[in-house]
Amino acid sequence: MNSTEKTHTISVLVENEFGVLARIAGMFAGRGFNIDALSVAPSPDPKTSRMTIITSGSDPIIEQILKQLNRLIDVIKVVDVSSQECVRRELMLVKVKVQDKNRESLMQIIQNFSGKIADADDSKTMVLEFLGEHDEMGTILNVLREQEFEILESVSTGNIAIQKGKNVLSS
Amino acid sequence: MNSTEKTHTISVLVENEFGVLARIAGMFAGRGFNIDALSVAPSPDPKTSRMTIITSGSDPIIEQILKQLNRLIDVIKVVDVSSQECVRRELMLVKVKVQDKNRESLMQIIQNFSGKIADADDSKTMVLEFLGEHDEMGTILNVLREQEFEILESVSTGNIAIQKGKNVLSS
Repeated sequence: MNSTEKTHTISVLVENEFGVLARIAGMFAGRGFNIDALSVAPSPDPKTSRMTIITSGSDPIIEQILKQLNRLIDVIKVVDVSSQECVRRELMLVKVKVQDKNRESLMQIIQNFSGKIADADDSKTMVLEFLGEHDEMGTILNVLREQEFEILESVSTGNIAIQKGKNVLSS
Repeated sequence: MNSTEKTHTISVLVENEFGVLARIAGMFAGRGFNIDALSVAPSPDPKTSRMTIITSGSDPIIEQILKQLNRLIDVIKVVDVSSQECVRRELMLVKVKVQDKNRESLMQIIQNFSGKIADADDSKTMVLEFLGEHDEMGTILNVLREQEFEILESVSTGNIAIQKGKNVLSS
């Protein structure tokens, strides 16, 4: 990402039609647009799904992305929520190795970032769950590394977002 | 979904290469495989991303999906974690309309499902955040509907999953 590129969060409401993700991901790939993270799941109306796309680019590129998304069949609504007042959340699960000597400092990290222990199966590995804004998830991984915890694996959802107040993403 | 079809959660580790999501979504669409939900985000190793795909199908179909995923360029590892001991989590944000008369019952629902108020901007709408297993998210929406809350919009990440214990998704 160079200095004129910014990260954008784009909410997209789509018809729940076969192949809609392939058409959207194909459009991004075909035109050379980045997808940093993406999540899609059915919305409360079973006829539609809702997608959150994290992308980065200069202002003209983002404008192109929004224009091309709006042109796609099955796309009902597109909103770049980056400049809007939003609730943004990302969920991350992290599996770390735990030893007796570092157990206490792990508990401290969990507490500092309002995390939870999701599993402590054999007490040599733990699965932790963290919920927050995207940047916070990166900070957590950095803090774990700085304190020399071995991160065995982690999985995250990417940011999802919803506008505050009355504005609603709907048809 | 007919009786022989089951929902599967597939974890996929991929090279963080341009167009990888388009290739995977394109393979699903081209071969007629469903994607019920999907999330993808960078993993702690910046060279790789991790994808969680929720799909449904009969056993032979799922076998085909796993085989085709493994054949794709940039796919490092594929694990169907459905039958494994896993931590599974989904994050949902819901915006509801709130009135004085139903405020108390909303607080009760939030408490019952260990939710949080993420925003109460003008106190006529609230954004709630819930974290749990996929089925629980459906239950929450049903309970809100039964108690006649107007769901203005909601967005969810789809399930992400991590195996308990020592098994790790890595190259």
